[in-house]
Amino acid sequence: MGKVFADISMSLDGFVAGPKPSLKDPLGQGGEQLHEWVLKTAAWRKPHGKSGGETGPDGDIFEESFSRNGAVIMGRKMFSGGTGPWKDDPNADGWWGNNPPFHVPVFILTHNSRETLKKQGGTSFTFVTDGIESALSQGQAAAGDKDVSIAGGASAIQQFIKAGLLDELQIHIVPVLLGGGARLLENLGNPKLEKVRVIDSPLVTHLKFHLKY
Amino acid sequence: MGKVFADISMSLDGFVAGPKPSLKDPLGQGGEQLHEWVLKTAAWRKPHGKSGGETGPDGDIFEESFSRNGAVIMGRKMFSGGTGPWKDDPNADGWWGNNPPFHVPVFILTHNSRETLKKQGGTSFTFVTDGIESALSQGQAAAGDKDVSIAGGASAIQQFIKAGLLDELQIHIVPVLLGGGARLLENLGNPKLEKVRVIDSPLVTHLKFHLKY
Repeated sequence: MGKVFADISMSLDGFVAGPKPSLKDPLGQGGEQLHEWVLKTAAWRKPHGKSGGETGPDGDIFEESFSRNGAVIMGRKMFSGGTGPWKDDPNADGWWGNNPPFHVPVFILTHNSRETLKKQGGTSFTFVTDGIESALSQGQAAAGDKDVSIAGGASAIQQFIKAGLLDELQIHIVPVLLGGGARLLENLGNPKLEKVRVIDSPLVTHLKFHLKY
Repeated sequence: MGKVFADISMSLDGFVAGPKPSLKDPLGQGGEQLHEWVLKTAAWRKPHGKSGGETGPDGDIFEESFSRNGAVIMGRKMFSGGTGPWKDDPNADGWWGNNPPFHVPVFILTHNSRETLKKQGGTSFTFVTDGIESALSQGQAAAGDKDVSIAGGASAIQQFIKAGLLDELQIHIVPVLLGGGARLLENLGNPKLEKVRVIDSPLVTHLKFHLKY
């Protein structure tokens, strides 16, 4: 069985999204700065249907995580783009479009059940209402020998760490200050972090940890 | 005139001291973990009157900052070790001993005036009651061509950043989670951070920034 990992961009002051997220500004005020490093890479642009882009360590790190990934777990807000529950908004999945960038089965942590959505390019959205262990079991079954990524948001990653279920965490520290928003590193229980790799580039510093419980 | 800089160790979750600091445990619960990397170095041990220790990038970075330093500014709590104002505790400076490790003039930000204390080895403690600009002027006059360091705590560093007075910030990120305590990167105003260097070692990742306002 594969590993359970999370890869997430964080501001130097600890936020993975800025203040006041909305459907128009789902990463919150200033939050788009957290992802500039990856959007520039050829490795990110290709699975998003775009040509061109930069090569180098940032792209290599994105590619490394993308290629090991056999299934994705995410929170409801990350799926629906900052809107309310989709029972009130049947178009909430419009956020990810018809050809989402995952290309693997995606499992959404939610309290509202819904039929699985099949999208183009190998992405499906399955709605899991019975907790993170169930989502992980379904993700691992779908991933086979590959790994399962916890895509976010902060709360989903926190739940997996608190339950002792996350094996690896890679934080991409972006040298900006958001001053507020969603903090990643709180409500974690008491994991031990073993730093296994640091790679620096002009836009971001990639810190990779193994977690022990 | 020299630069104004701060060098400070921070947990991965953003704290420069743990929860519940006291005179017995001035760095708060778990806070001593933030400084293990430097206490091991020969470069730190020498000005603290100790022989032995390790050489390598961690010691080189400590030595680099220590040698440029012509004067120190610190907050009242860092001076008095977590106790109340010294008008209630005449021994509050016992925390730093008779031969403090600074070996340069130190200026304490406080609301309680007091005579300057002369210590062994070139350290003096001067008490500044009229604000950070006054402390900086006095520090720069004492430092001559050398630089002035803002030693901490978090609040003192925040005040200098918010006032646009800090030129350089080096954060030593230690891969531990303190879960609470004194946060460094809040109440900062809106500085721009230019990342100028990252050096990694097994115990700590050193990120150095130039600040623009």
